[in-house]
Amino acid sequence: MAQKLTPSDVKGLFEKHSNWGRWGKDDERGALNYITDKKRAGAARLVQTGESVSTALPLATIPAPDNPMPVTHLMVQAGSDAHEQTLPYAGDYFAIAPHGMANTHLDALCHVFWQGKMYNGFDAKEVGSHGAKKCAIDVTREGVVSRGVLLDIPRLKKVEWLEPGTPIFPEDLDAAEKAQHVHVEEGDVLLVRTGRSTRRKSKGGWDPFREGMPGLDASCLPWLHERRVAVLGSDAVSDVVPSGYDGLALPIHVGTLVAMGIHLIDNADFDAVSATCAKLGRSEFLFTMAPLILERGTASPVNPLAIF
Amino acid sequence: MAQKLTPSDVKGLFEKHSNWGRWGKDDERGALNYITDKKRAGAARLVQTGESVSTALPLATIPAPDNPMPVTHLMVQAGSDAHEQTLPYAGDYFAIAPHGMANTHLDALCHVFWQGKMYNGFDAKEVGSHGAKKCAIDVTREGVVSRGVLLDIPRLKKVEWLEPGTPIFPEDLDAAEKAQHVHVEEGDVLLVRTGRSTRRKSKGGWDPFREGMPGLDASCLPWLHERRVAVLGSDAVSDVVPSGYDGLALPIHVGTLVAMGIHLIDNADFDAVSATCAKLGRSEFLFTMAPLILERGTASPVNPLAIF
Amino acid sequence: MAQKLTPSDVKGLFEKHSNWGRWGKDDERGALNYITDKKRAGAARLVQTGESVSTALPLATIPAPDNPMPVTHLMVQAGSDAHEQTLPYAGDYFAIAPHGMANTHLDALCHVFWQGKMYNGFDAKEVGSHGAKKCAIDVTREGVVSRGVLLDIPRLKKVEWLEPGTPIFPEDLDAAEKAQHVHVEEGDVLLVRTGRSTRRKSKGGWDPFREGMPGLDASCLPWLHERRVAVLGSDAVSDVVPSGYDGLALPIHVGTLVAMGIHLIDNADFDAVSATCAKLGRSEFLFTMAPLILERGTASPVNPLAIF
Amino acid sequence: MAQKLTPSDVKGLFEKHSNWGRWGKDDERGALNYITDKKRAGAARLVQTGESVSTALPLATIPAPDNPMPVTHLMVQAGSDAHEQTLPYAGDYFAIAPHGMANTHLDALCHVFWQGKMYNGFDAKEVGSHGAKKCAIDVTREGVVSRGVLLDIPRLKKVEWLEPGTPIFPEDLDAAEKAQHVHVEEGDVLLVRTGRSTRRKSKGGWDPFREGMPGLDASCLPWLHERRVAVLGSDAVSDVVPSGYDGLALPIHVGTLVAMGIHLIDNADFDAVSATCAKLGRSEFLFTMAPLILERGTASPVNPLAIF
Repeated sequence: MAQKLTPSDVKGLFEKHSNWGRWGKDDERGALNYITDKKRAGAARLVQTGESVSTALPLATIPAPDNPMPVTHLMVQAGSDAHEQTLPYAGDYFAIAPHGMANTHLDALCHVFWQGKMYNGFDAKEVGSHGAKKCAIDVTREGVVSRGVLLDIPRLKKVEWLEPGTPIFPEDLDAAEKAQHVHVEEGDVLLVRTGRSTRRKSKGGWDPFREGMPGLDASCLPWLHERRVAVLGSDAVSDVVPSGYDGLALPIHVGTLVAMGIHLIDNADFDAVSATCAKLGRSEFLFTMAPLILERGTASPVNPLAIF
Repeated sequence: MAQKLTPSDVKGLFEKHSNWGRWGKDDERGALNYITDKKRAGAARLVQTGESVSTALPLATIPAPDNPMPVTHLMVQAGSDAHEQTLPYAGDYFAIAPHGMANTHLDALCHVFWQGKMYNGFDAKEVGSHGAKKCAIDVTREGVVSRGVLLDIPRLKKVEWLEPGTPIFPEDLDAAEKAQHVHVEEGDVLLVRTGRSTRRKSKGGWDPFREGMPGLDASCLPWLHERRVAVLGSDAVSDVVPSGYDGLALPIHVGTLVAMGIHLIDNADFDAVSATCAKLGRSEFLFTMAPLILERGTASPVNPLAIF
Repeated sequence: MAQKLTPSDVKGLFEKHSNWGRWGKDDERGALNYITDKKRAGAARLVQTGESVSTALPLATIPAPDNPMPVTHLMVQAGSDAHEQTLPYAGDYFAIAPHGMANTHLDALCHVFWQGKMYNGFDAKEVGSHGAKKCAIDVTREGVVSRGVLLDIPRLKKVEWLEPGTPIFPEDLDAAEKAQHVHVEEGDVLLVRTGRSTRRKSKGGWDPFREGMPGLDASCLPWLHERRVAVLGSDAVSDVVPSGYDGLALPIHVGTLVAMGIHLIDNADFDAVSATCAKLGRSEFLFTMAPLILERGTASPVNPLAIF
Repeated sequence: MAQKLTPSDVKGLFEKHSNWGRWGKDDERGALNYITDKKRAGAARLVQTGESVSTALPLATIPAPDNPMPVTHLMVQAGSDAHEQTLPYAGDYFAIAPHGMANTHLDALCHVFWQGKMYNGFDAKEVGSHGAKKCAIDVTREGVVSRGVLLDIPRLKKVEWLEPGTPIFPEDLDAAEKAQHVHVEEGDVLLVRTGRSTRRKSKGGWDPFREGMPGLDASCLPWLHERRVAVLGSDAVSDVVPSGYDGLALPIHVGTLVAMGIHLIDNADFDAVSATCAKLGRSEFLFTMAPLILERGTASPVNPLAIF
């Protein structure tokens, strides 16, 4: 196990591994800048079999311990009443608070703050009653298309899933790369599987803040920075919960979203992509994700695809 | 101009060009079945420059004549209040009736009915108060990844846009193919540009049911069937409005969604993809779209991507 | 304890104590017809001290076992951002499914059905995707103003509250009348206190369908009919849960809403009105309630007042 | 016509007619303090015929020029699908931004600000992302029960309605009192009819900010203060729009809500109460209103009743 950092060390990492100013003082895209046309073109060339695999959970309409504010899904018009209409149709309506712990979503860079600031030093007050004026989710309007890499930690550890509260250290990431024959590179979308969704299917959802989540220890921040990851995805919330650092609830969130400008995919489901990787003996694929264009939004529900 | 059909002729087209039973009596995916792994792999090979272009409008939060039920966008927590929290964050909430005329969305096959039935003969009553039990939007959960083809009718006609109510005939599709050096084939996602979003940017939105929409005349149905289109997309609503056929409000909707099982993308924005096609001298690209997994939904808002 | 009825007996009560046709075949107001101008004028004369007491719970915005679908409360504009506006203001937004088990609401007569019919024989299908065409909540648009009578069963039984699942029998209603010096009469709004809200404050909410609710046994139906109660209110859901009758989940709901046309107030809080009644030595008061005018609604959240 | 004030004069009125501190520095109820038990008891004695009349509009579910953000009304369960359930029922859902210009609502004292402050000097920042910590609508949880007085300006002026933009001066209030044989007194709920809802029924809604509203000129503020009005109600928005004072959009709102602590009823419908007053030769009645208990709300939709 890695030597443990102090909370003060972790705060130092936020400073040391900052990307503020790297792409200019007005930049709102952060590490998305690592994804170039060339990177996308290369990623497309990874496609061989043509299999397309979703990494999203269904929208979570059922209350659960990890879903206290479920998606509301109602009908504007049901087919059973459609005979009353000139053009018989059915339509629906849904309402969502995308940051829920049971919905696969992409966090915008304006989602969390450190010392009153978001990525690149923009003030938290830029997110007011009418949404975000800086670093909103619509910086991803042209989609996120790149090489996707899965690091499958339960597979590495030969377990079904990591138990809640289990930290993942940089050594684990290195070991997974080695075992899974892949090397994370500049502009990659890195998906780190913890098996949380596997456990959830088996045992039902649990309250992440009471019972914990497996995820990355804050000591992984330098690793993410050095590898120039463009987007980080998790089947949990990237951060191990509890973090193990007093006064720092979600240091991976702060270190990625705020310091490095790395967008985060939370609450994905990597079970199918894990199975396909195992079947094909691969850990890389074309990754595509197209957040909804909510112009002042702090997140979007997403259905990211891995194409093999 | 094509010789005009009668309403009765059009109803005959629904019968003649039906795919009911083609993929088995339990099939809920319709023409998505045309998209094979091989088709996807071939589509990925189209990527050359790596440019990624959105074909979606932003979520329509502002009331307009074509948007009487705007998307509600509110904040669960604003950054300006974030100092009150242990972990300062901002989060939002939105509510959407996806079939709105100003939101880019994918219609599920359960969205419209003909004589009380949806695609493959399922009863309209399968869509009840709790959503659709058959042909819901979640049949697209693994995404729609295929070759995309743009037929750019304003470019063909050398106009900025087609005026509301302008029909597009099979001859126009043929002419666009010829002029734009592309041939629509089995499993393609066909995007037909009318220029509606160009006109909307210039003049503001208008009420489609009062003032009309440009779109396909019902006589295009055999063409779509013969070419084995997998998904049809429009910057308007695919159908020309008014349809010109008494008693048939949206015959393209009925002929595609109900008869052939072709999913429809409504209210896209093809301006950027048109410009990129013109710039690169291409009309084909890798198309990816990943609807949200709303398990009983009749639609999903989408942000479809064209990757060149 | 009263002799137990069979389910078949209870079904017989629905027939025997029906008010269908009593006020004409088109009537949608049911037992509200018992409240005359004269009744209202008499009720107003009951006011002596001028104390006004709410019988409503606050809107239930917090998830709880009896509140799986909480009221959504969000801000359209916060005061903290109000400096950005010409006229600085704050405003909010809320969304509610009024029939929730933790919200004080009035059930419209269209809320439940028996053998496919609502009150006065209207078909259940009159309540479609766009709401109720018959017996909607807007029949109460001029408000419900009458004599209110509290029968306080915990006070009668000298307990803090009735435990979940405890039935109340007609003999209990008679005994409460006697002990509390009041006689329920034609056109009264009858409030039956079970102490559920007292228990809830002490122990937190519980799932009514798993753990039960105190309330009226079905054998009270003839009593309610004979007394010509106009509206029945409860701090629980009027029905004892479980009902004790196989195949009859909520026989008081069916017997009142469907058979007799008695509107029901669910999930009130009678603690304060109980205290005021005890203090003043009274069990009657001016009752006023003004449901929102939701023209096709099946319910309205309400804040019914007792004025002493 | 009254001599016109300057904007500076009006600002002086806010100072001069302030109730800040009058009921203690912690008071959040403002002029509701004028309503005593004795006042309520006296109001109840006004009831003679027992007629109950609503002063509310139906919830505004239809978009209109004065209703850009309509109430969303959807069904959780329709009766047409109820056969699928053990207990067949229907239920609905609605979402409302209560301050809309076509919904009858009560403004809380935290709704508007003057120089960063609400009533009694509380800071605007007390209304944050999670609602109002001071002067929220739940200060009215026990209801508003008092003498209601209607001053019917169109009846005074012998017109159907006042045209948009028509100001009402103190002299008009005096004249209406005289003509309608009533004198506004301490603790009264004063309803000032402009006929806006009459005009709206005849001509449809209009945009109040473009086309104006009839209402009180700012010079009425001293009158309201001297008479110790508890609550002010309007079938428009109390303020005449435009106000006629540069830089002061809604001076009656500021003078009542902020300075005097007078809650405002906006967008009522006084047509029926006007007709009943005319029929009975009365201008006073028992007024009852019971806002929903939205604990941090800035408003509640209401259905205020006049009982004669």
